[in-house]
Amino acid sequence: MSVLRRIAVERLTREAFEPFGDVIDTHGPAPLLINQGRTERFHRLAGIECLGHGARAILSIFRGQPLLPLEIHMMERHPLGSQAFVPMNGGDFLAVVAPPGDFNETEVRAFWARGGQGVNYRPGTWHAPLLPLAADSDYLVVDRAGPGVNCDEVLLNTPIQPVLPEEGS
Amino acid sequence: MSVLRRIAVERLTREAFEPFGDVIDTHGPAPLLINQGRTERFHRLAGIECLGHGARAILSIFRGQPLLPLEIHMMERHPLGSQAFVPMNGGDFLAVVAPPGDFNETEVRAFWARGGQGVNYRPGTWHAPLLPLAADSDYLVVDRAGPGVNCDEVLLNTPIQPVLPEEGS
Repeated sequence: MSVLRRIAVERLTREAFEPFGDVIDTHGPAPLLINQGRTERFHRLAGIECLGHGARAILSIFRGQPLLPLEIHMMERHPLGSQAFVPMNGGDFLAVVAPPGDFNETEVRAFWARGGQGVNYRPGTWHAPLLPLAADSDYLVVDRAGPGVNCDEVLLNTPIQPVLPEEGS
Repeated sequence: MSVLRRIAVERLTREAFEPFGDVIDTHGPAPLLINQGRTERFHRLAGIECLGHGARAILSIFRGQPLLPLEIHMMERHPLGSQAFVPMNGGDFLAVVAPPGDFNETEVRAFWARGGQGVNYRPGTWHAPLLPLAADSDYLVVDRAGPGVNCDEVLLNTPIQPVLPEEGS
């Protein structure tokens, strides 16, 4: 019989996610009005980090499928750069993270990115690979390309099962 | 009576848009399979340029409204950085552009970004401000923050009216 640790999925807010990175949505500071008032600019929701000589930020699209069963066995981090995921079709996803530094699996937390919210992981933030909740979910990804080893992986001793809150809770 | 120059809107393809920047969509090279095959990575669709000391790339959300009437009187460029626009709710928009260098209004072209396509303007590419075709259209924007003057504007002698192709053409 496999042993799983169940953790409750939290709602994604700027405050709760602060140790791990940025939340990319329109529910923060008031926007700037530009283009003769025709455009609201929700400014500087996240900063891109690209460490090391010869590195740059690139844009990619990730098309992801749900992980079934939803059990996290492995997490990874990118020490040399931030990594942002922003849904291109509003798809919800889970951000399962642990603080930068030595990995401690008792510190893993799970967040529910809803209604078009995106996230930007800080350099070194441990995170599970992309976890969309619906099939064929597209995300714009902003991350680092350049020399150097920019991916560490860790296997969990006890796999984690994120548990979504009941509807309406 | 105002004088307008009507220009035909072209379909947005990588080849046609190459002098101006990158097209961000999944209709290019085959994706890489990552995350145990659960995710397709359409890799490096665009590179972010951030020129000048102390500059970095930032993420913002632009919420735009259609320009009515659809007449372009002004264009702008960002000499120190690229600027990407990627729809967050699939909204079509127009990319009205002219080549970098001295502005020549006879070289203005208009492209129709459809079905979730995004664009990344190269540094110095002249472009009209955001032109969504539907109300309340949200775009993820990746551009440059940092010291220096990074916006030049030019007024057109003859305003431009982009003309969309007939449906089915």
